[in-house]
Amino acid sequence: MLVGEMSQQECKELLARLGFGRLACAQENRPYIVPIYFASEPDRLYGFATMGQKIEWMRSNPIVCVEVDEVRSPIDWVSVVVTGRYEELPETDEYLKQRERAEALLEKRSLWWEAGLAAAQTRGKFDRDRAVFYCIHLEEITGRRASPDPVEASPHPART
Amino acid sequence: MLVGEMSQQECKELLARLGFGRLACAQENRPYIVPIYFASEPDRLYGFATMGQKIEWMRSNPIVCVEVDEVRSPIDWVSVVVTGRYEELPETDEYLKQRERAEALLEKRSLWWEAGLAAAQTRGKFDRDRAVFYCIHLEEITGRRASPDPVEASPHPART
Repeated sequence: MLVGEMSQQECKELLARLGFGRLACAQENRPYIVPIYFASEPDRLYGFATMGQKIEWMRSNPIVCVEVDEVRSPIDWVSVVVTGRYEELPETDEYLKQRERAEALLEKRSLWWEAGLAAAQTRGKFDRDRAVFYCIHLEEITGRRASPDPVEASPHPART
Repeated sequence: MLVGEMSQQECKELLARLGFGRLACAQENRPYIVPIYFASEPDRLYGFATMGQKIEWMRSNPIVCVEVDEVRSPIDWVSVVVTGRYEELPETDEYLKQRERAEALLEKRSLWWEAGLAAAQTRGKFDRDRAVFYCIHLEEITGRRASPDPVEASPHPART
């Protein structure tokens, strides 16, 4: 197995392509992880959530970690880890533009997701007051790629 | 979308079946996530890593979070979140039995992984002194399952 560092460009491309990963926040040194969908820009990620432990914890401690990966096997994977800072995008004039940007990007990203939320909303199960748009400002990004050795990749070479 | 709690039994079954997830640790309220493979028993998970930030942080703060999920779409997923406590299994007489148990379970779980490590070891790229076996004692487990509404699940009912 060969493990190498990914460039910043490769890391950002993976974030943009996957748009799905896990976010960890922490309170009193207790970490907490949840899966998230997001839309990405070069310097930030946009996300959406309903109120709950994740939002409460990020409000009290905005330092978060986001990880995305593609794991095909323990010797064949890519993983990008982002350290970032949470900022909420409330429905106020100050945040109007950022919020519109977030909504537009998230909608573009996954229409079927919006459709799902809209469907839930229609049936009165989605509480708009509990909907939170947020962004994660990217502060540090690192990525690693593992690939099989050429020997491992061809365990059964053709016999001559 | 309907979201419901999973029973403890369902959560443990998902952990045992997947054997793969993400682990978060924290230091000075900064969270850090990495993907991990593990073997599970009803009260603990066994894992294996080479020395690095994750192990250093867990040594200084053993409170960790492990999350496993199967996400088919934003309205169709299961996610289990475990809060646990890290314990290292060093190569000492005191930990011999636990370590043998961990090695046996991990080997059973993923022979191809062991094969990959063995291959790396053979070529002198795997440093045994940097290999760490550990267990995560399960303290709190919660799980949630989201499923489409019957209406969402059949968006195109047959016309009569």
